[in-house]
Amino acid sequence: MINKIATRMQGISPFYVMELLQRAKQLEQQGRDIIHMEVGEPDFPTPPEVVQAGIDNIKTGQIKYTPAAGLPELREKIAQYYQEHYHVDVLPQRIFITPGASGAFLLAIGVCVNPGEEILLTDPCYPCNSNFIKLFGGIPNFVPVSEETDYQFNKELIEQHWTQSCKGVVLASPSNPTGTLISEVNLKAAIGAVHEKGGCFFSDEIYHGLVYGQQAKTALKFSEEVFVINSFSKYFGMTGWRVGWLIVPEVFISSVEKLAQNIFISTPTHSQFAALAAFSKATLAELTQRAKEFSIRRDYLYLRLQQIGFKIREKPEGALYIYADCSDFTQDSFQFSKDLLEEKGVAITPGKDFGRNQANTHIRFAYTTSLKNLEEGLARLEQFIKQKK
Amino acid sequence: MINKIATRMQGISPFYVMELLQRAKQLEQQGRDIIHMEVGEPDFPTPPEVVQAGIDNIKTGQIKYTPAAGLPELREKIAQYYQEHYHVDVLPQRIFITPGASGAFLLAIGVCVNPGEEILLTDPCYPCNSNFIKLFGGIPNFVPVSEETDYQFNKELIEQHWTQSCKGVVLASPSNPTGTLISEVNLKAAIGAVHEKGGCFFSDEIYHGLVYGQQAKTALKFSEEVFVINSFSKYFGMTGWRVGWLIVPEVFISSVEKLAQNIFISTPTHSQFAALAAFSKATLAELTQRAKEFSIRRDYLYLRLQQIGFKIREKPEGALYIYADCSDFTQDSFQFSKDLLEEKGVAITPGKDFGRNQANTHIRFAYTTSLKNLEEGLARLEQFIKQKK
Repeated sequence: MINKIATRMQGISPFYVMELLQRAKQLEQQGRDIIHMEVGEPDFPTPPEVVQAGIDNIKTGQIKYTPAAGLPELREKIAQYYQEHYHVDVLPQRIFITPGASGAFLLAIGVCVNPGEEILLTDPCYPCNSNFIKLFGGIPNFVPVSEETDYQFNKELIEQHWTQSCKGVVLASPSNPTGTLISEVNLKAAIGAVHEKGGCFFSDEIYHGLVYGQQAKTALKFSEEVFVINSFSKYFGMTGWRVGWLIVPEVFISSVEKLAQNIFISTPTHSQFAALAAFSKATLAELTQRAKEFSIRRDYLYLRLQQIGFKIREKPEGALYIYADCSDFTQDSFQFSKDLLEEKGVAITPGKDFGRNQANTHIRFAYTTSLKNLEEGLARLEQFIKQKK
Repeated sequence: MINKIATRMQGISPFYVMELLQRAKQLEQQGRDIIHMEVGEPDFPTPPEVVQAGIDNIKTGQIKYTPAAGLPELREKIAQYYQEHYHVDVLPQRIFITPGASGAFLLAIGVCVNPGEEILLTDPCYPCNSNFIKLFGGIPNFVPVSEETDYQFNKELIEQHWTQSCKGVVLASPSNPTGTLISEVNLKAAIGAVHEKGGCFFSDEIYHGLVYGQQAKTALKFSEEVFVINSFSKYFGMTGWRVGWLIVPEVFISSVEKLAQNIFISTPTHSQFAALAAFSKATLAELTQRAKEFSIRRDYLYLRLQQIGFKIREKPEGALYIYADCSDFTQDSFQFSKDLLEEKGVAITPGKDFGRNQANTHIRFAYTTSLKNLEEGLARLEQFIKQKK
């Protein structure tokens, strides 16, 4: 009897938070009021101009395949955005429109990583990133990081953990789950270290824009030889539309195009037309306003969590999350999360979903819900902890 | 120096037709009138009710992630469609909504095929199918087929070509490029043969509905242990929306869900809501009408191509294509296609895109354009051939 399920599936872990999500839904169906602080999805609607552009495209009825690399005018717009926003020049031919950042990762890893090759990742990090590597037979090599390096790589960590089998490094700034940014000087040095080894540098920039009080630097500022993954999902409020982008070094253009043709055919057409409206002045102004709202939520959550007794080793500067040390209350953050949901109706994400490095004493709180909800959630959390003591 | 591009990319061939497409675009920009008979995409617009359902969803502004497996109500609707249309029971839990059939193939192959394992495919067949296998390190084992078996597998071919390393079989009915259907008895026997070997059976049913004068049978009629790939793209006129589905054996449900979570997050939300309207009575009636129009085009093209001197060894019963033998005019169908485009402005797809089996003496004609355009295209083709003689 053949074992029909491919071996790679053993290495790909499910999201533990899914168990919590399902239970949260059950409880909601039973009439319980649940505060959601587990969701990695902005609560704001898609901006009105983007919605209208989507509708206008659908109204034509002509929602046909686009070129595999994406609508040429959207690739141009993104190039222009890099010029205006980051002051870097990017050839539109290097920009591929993808079904979300997921599609961008699939292309980038698929085109680079051979079976048996290692990719360095931080621990903690977003779980899908390592699963893309495993999907293609690559080996994620997790490097434990702490507040000492802003939960990011630096030159020394890369050099120290680089092996004969290493092919590259994935770096996410701001990071999910920690929300921390890499400094400009460390980013530049990290890219330099990877290139010196002859490896590939993958820069996950999907939370750019959601950075508070400063502006994140793109890896493209320091090299044209990096892969940049980005998306309209988070900052632009377009999660369900499934549209993102991948920027590749010139030498990869034809390979990435070939792979995109084969595995996607194309990215949703109406979503691409909608995304064309995402860079308008009015929309960008609206998005800046939203980022301010997120920063207010972050400040509130940062303060309150510490008041309650969580330790936050570094104030996050971006993304939608706070990664908090709960070791004063539990050594099993997954069980803690389950109990909190059952007893108080508050859903959070256990550290376990982001790696092994102190995962059982950490929890990710997402501020993707209103301040009012956050207040209610924190009040319940405080009560829960008091009752536990 | 590390070779940065992964080895798998060497095995993945680009579509030769892309070269023709690009040239066709250039010529159009120069003012030339091009007849497109290369496009694998129905020319009809998305049905109005589907368009409206998409707009209604977008208007809410709340285009958020859906569960990775898809909108529960869409999975239910598809299950109901199988009951009404094919008279087979499918548990909604076995139905995964995917970003087009591409996404369905990615999941199905990703969850089944280990590096080094072989999958049997017909030659000719749709090129992406084999590229999904190569993507995961699997080995496509091409079996030349002819009109003797309707360009399809049968029990004997499977048994004859099955090796120690074989993991399964991909069968597409109707076939792209030949448009031929497998008979009910052969389908049943082919599934039986694969299961007897302990292998996986992948049934590509994306051209179901576009079958003329009869109804295609789903592999699910003969076994619950098969993978079925289908899509809203072709029959339902929703190419650019990127929404399809995959039906899996029960034992694969949790693995496929895990993989979908990781590589897609979810299928475009607005496309899923739009697809909910695809099964309405009015839409299905409209689609039946369109299928009639396609069958008229097929009849016309089938007749005219033979009048001109092409040999068509079997009248296609479905899909959007005729696969014609051009050996009386050329031994290099790719060059023939390029010359035809340059000289007469008619775009077609060379056999080379579908394999090696007599590929250089075959051409695929798509009837995805109006009868009027087909008439013009065929007149030009006839002239081209006369001038060549």
